[in-house]
Amino acid sequence: MQSTGFFRRSELQNVNRVRRASVFFALVAVAAMGMRLSGWAARPGESLFVEGIPGKVPACASCHGPHGEGGGQGAYPRIAGQPAAYLETQLKAFRDGGRSNPLMSPMVAALSDADIAALASFLEQEHPPIAPSPDADPFGLSRGQRLVALGRWDLGVPACTSCHGAALQGVAPAIPSLAGQSAQYLSAQLRAYKSGERSPGPLALMGRIARGMSSQEIEDAALYIASLPAGVTTEIPRPAVPEPYIAKPQPPDAFVPPPEAAIPDGPYGDLVRLGQNIFEDTPKYAAPYAGNTLSCRNCHLDRGRDAKSSPMWAAYVHYPEYRKKDGLVNTIQMRVQGCFRYSQNGTVPESDSREITALVTYFYWMAGGLPVGVKPKAAGYPKLDAPKEIPSLERGAKVYASACAICHGQDGLGRSSAGQQVFPPLWGPQSFNWGAGMHQVDRAAGFIKTSMPYGAGGTLTDQQAWDVAAYVNSRPRPPDPRFTQSVERTRELYHADHEYDYYGREVDGLVLGAPEEQGKRR
Amino acid sequence: MQSTGFFRRSELQNVNRVRRASVFFALVAVAAMGMRLSGWAARPGESLFVEGIPGKVPACASCHGPHGEGGGQGAYPRIAGQPAAYLETQLKAFRDGGRSNPLMSPMVAALSDADIAALASFLEQEHPPIAPSPDADPFGLSRGQRLVALGRWDLGVPACTSCHGAALQGVAPAIPSLAGQSAQYLSAQLRAYKSGERSPGPLALMGRIARGMSSQEIEDAALYIASLPAGVTTEIPRPAVPEPYIAKPQPPDAFVPPPEAAIPDGPYGDLVRLGQNIFEDTPKYAAPYAGNTLSCRNCHLDRGRDAKSSPMWAAYVHYPEYRKKDGLVNTIQMRVQGCFRYSQNGTVPESDSREITALVTYFYWMAGGLPVGVKPKAAGYPKLDAPKEIPSLERGAKVYASACAICHGQDGLGRSSAGQQVFPPLWGPQSFNWGAGMHQVDRAAGFIKTSMPYGAGGTLTDQQAWDVAAYVNSRPRPPDPRFTQSVERTRELYHADHEYDYYGREVDGLVLGAPEEQGKRR
Repeated sequence: MQSTGFFRRSELQNVNRVRRASVFFALVAVAAMGMRLSGWAARPGESLFVEGIPGKVPACASCHGPHGEGGGQGAYPRIAGQPAAYLETQLKAFRDGGRSNPLMSPMVAALSDADIAALASFLEQEHPPIAPSPDADPFGLSRGQRLVALGRWDLGVPACTSCHGAALQGVAPAIPSLAGQSAQYLSAQLRAYKSGERSPGPLALMGRIARGMSSQEIEDAALYIASLPAGVTTEIPRPAVPEPYIAKPQPPDAFVPPPEAAIPDGPYGDLVRLGQNIFEDTPKYAAPYAGNTLSCRNCHLDRGRDAKSSPMWAAYVHYPEYRKKDGLVNTIQMRVQGCFRYSQNGTVPESDSREITALVTYFYWMAGGLPVGVKPKAAGYPKLDAPKEIPSLERGAKVYASACAICHGQDGLGRSSAGQQVFPPLWGPQSFNWGAGMHQVDRAAGFIKTSMPYGAGGTLTDQQAWDVAAYVNSRPRPPDPRFTQSVERTRELYHADHEYDYYGREVDGLVLGAPEEQGKRR
Repeated sequence: MQSTGFFRRSELQNVNRVRRASVFFALVAVAAMGMRLSGWAARPGESLFVEGIPGKVPACASCHGPHGEGGGQGAYPRIAGQPAAYLETQLKAFRDGGRSNPLMSPMVAALSDADIAALASFLEQEHPPIAPSPDADPFGLSRGQRLVALGRWDLGVPACTSCHGAALQGVAPAIPSLAGQSAQYLSAQLRAYKSGERSPGPLALMGRIARGMSSQEIEDAALYIASLPAGVTTEIPRPAVPEPYIAKPQPPDAFVPPPEAAIPDGPYGDLVRLGQNIFEDTPKYAAPYAGNTLSCRNCHLDRGRDAKSSPMWAAYVHYPEYRKKDGLVNTIQMRVQGCFRYSQNGTVPESDSREITALVTYFYWMAGGLPVGVKPKAAGYPKLDAPKEIPSLERGAKVYASACAICHGQDGLGRSSAGQQVFPPLWGPQSFNWGAGMHQVDRAAGFIKTSMPYGAGGTLTDQQAWDVAAYVNSRPRPPDPRFTQSVERTRELYHADHEYDYYGREVDGLVLGAPEEQGKRR
């Protein structure tokens, strides 16, 4: 019997919250005692956690609860179920001074690296039920829900779910779970990130994000997260606003798409929502056509709304348009088919299929109020000036390791959590193929410069963006579905006028000849 | 040998105009003399035309030229090739005082009805070549071209070509040819229509139209028509403006689509032009899909631009939209497919076919500057209040005979000229089927009230519009392609909630039971 197996989760959902909590804590106590008395074999780290090291390290469980579920009315955070690597990093930071806390630092001073590894490994496996949180102001909750589920891209704050996972369950190795954390602890940490009291973590991301949030927003987000029956639900619900939204004519360069909650009821709204769902999780909602694990939102951030990453509202209003790529005037439907063919490396849905129609209807809804035929400045990806130095794979590999691998993995294959992809693969069999727009080094560099690392766009230099774009595009990926005769012939036909070209070129090592030849137009 | 057979037309085109004209007149003289000397059998009316009735009626040819080609430096109009019925009407009007002209009235006073019929019949068959017109101010010509080819719908002036035919060749029985007429004569007639000096003709159309034109516009149009190598060309070319047009955001209820001449060069503009061509002549440009002789423009006037007849710019911006008709969210492509299926009674092109893409691209181009998702008031057809009396087929038949038959024919089959349909069939095998929007009496009544008679919208009473809409929709036409089991069952499925319903009901006589039952919901 596992220590988390007291209830089936589906049963838990249906019990009165308060009663459930009392029952739970009583059972935990009994079970813990039972295990101690029976001499049941402790897992590595468990005895350290429950008993500490007499005279040197207090028992962690005395504050964080017997299974790391947290305690002290929220003063002590839930540490169960966090990625082991994240826990190790935090414990070492407390021990070595990288993260300062007057309570924690002395308590962990005597832990060896092996102790820390054992504790982290034990805690990663623990999944005690989550205690209900007290009721909170519904307006604050609704504001918090908006931040957690949608973010505020206008302030540089992405949705919490976009990195911590759709149920805030955390993504190993670096992104902690927020599920079940108390509002008190969450808001304290966000305030500490904002003030700089807590060091801003990998890529300084949490510092940037917290600085984008007002004190009220921090409270709202923390209360909302604490209110969630996390571990039970799998996705954070989307906020709803009551009033209907009517598209008003808006100038194309100051355009703000309508709030998601303004999607109306009825069959039209249902199709808009389906389009949004396909956009956000293409492999799930357009399964017959998805050729990899990428979704539209991976290249078009904030659900296709972000003005810096080729927003769909800007695209909608300038199609039909002639495209050199296929020598045809493309409708918006044909353009989206191109994404399925290349970026998705998939099967192309018919232009009047439910999937394409849903996506186009979503774009149409999002573009409400924009003038037809006037190309907004936000259309497409930002363009970088030509690089000062020819993009270098060697330099690019270093940028990748320091700025990208934490989320996308050193192997470039992205990361999943709870069976759902959180960070997309940048190369390999599940990534875009040679024919995709992102396989053009200049386009990838523009996107990376403005939008990557996710939530920290603009922090790389232009040269770093060029270098890492070349590196990513030099990695192996699926071939162009238009493949004809040979790589050379196919490139000549479809990719001839691109500089810094890794089309069809798979680079296994980094030595590709003299540096000045690396990546140059061939 | 026919008197017009002096040259092959293709040869004529390539000869210097002045030289051609001199040669022509010389040959005409020789030929006329030759025919007279040889005693070649005169056709009915010819001797009357060439010789007159000694002492009573002067020879028509002495002013109007030996073949009715006109003369006197434009003072005497070309009367050759006019529809016989039109000539009879005019000659009788001169004789009986309905049209007053100090020269003509005394000259025709002694003609009998039989004389007039013989003259008209002779002249209808005459097609002498057209003399070249002197060069004119190019700016005036370009303004005139715009009026002749496109009209000015904002002032209630339709294109001359829309009733007189694409080459201004006239449409029997009532619409005269303008081709080859002198500028002097044309402008004099337009001025006479405008002042009321000339009675305004059938349905008072020309009076209304001429009153919509300024003196300058009358001169411009007349000069332009006189400049045309009519009888050689088959279509009036479209005007071009030099500057590129950039769509500017415009409020939906004061929207003016861009000028046709702003369609850009290149593959995008080519597709817009193809879309416009399909819109204007569907049987020619979308031949594989056209099931009858109707074109899109027959229901959507002024090339889909007219705000009163469901303009395409207004349609474009409110799709995708849910439609009860098929229970689906329709893209603009799906909506256009519906027109092919019902109004065109045709074969439905694929939604990404070149034809549908061209039409949608034309609509997109036309909607440039309109806000997405904001339904302009102009969308769809105007709606009439419920009729005071139940629409009556008997009254409708009378309205039809007096206001519609002149163009659409008493048989409802429309009229063609030079192999091209000018006035569309309203029923019969070449008209829309039971599933078309125009087969709904309320929609047809709204359209008829505001837009019919063509160029004289608003002249029927609401009750007349309801009555004639019911009459037109009671005539036989092709069945609904969704036909299921029986007319009753099909109506139940697809047409159940329409009042004044003639769905699938072919009425051969006018007696359908008690008047109060006629057309009532069944």
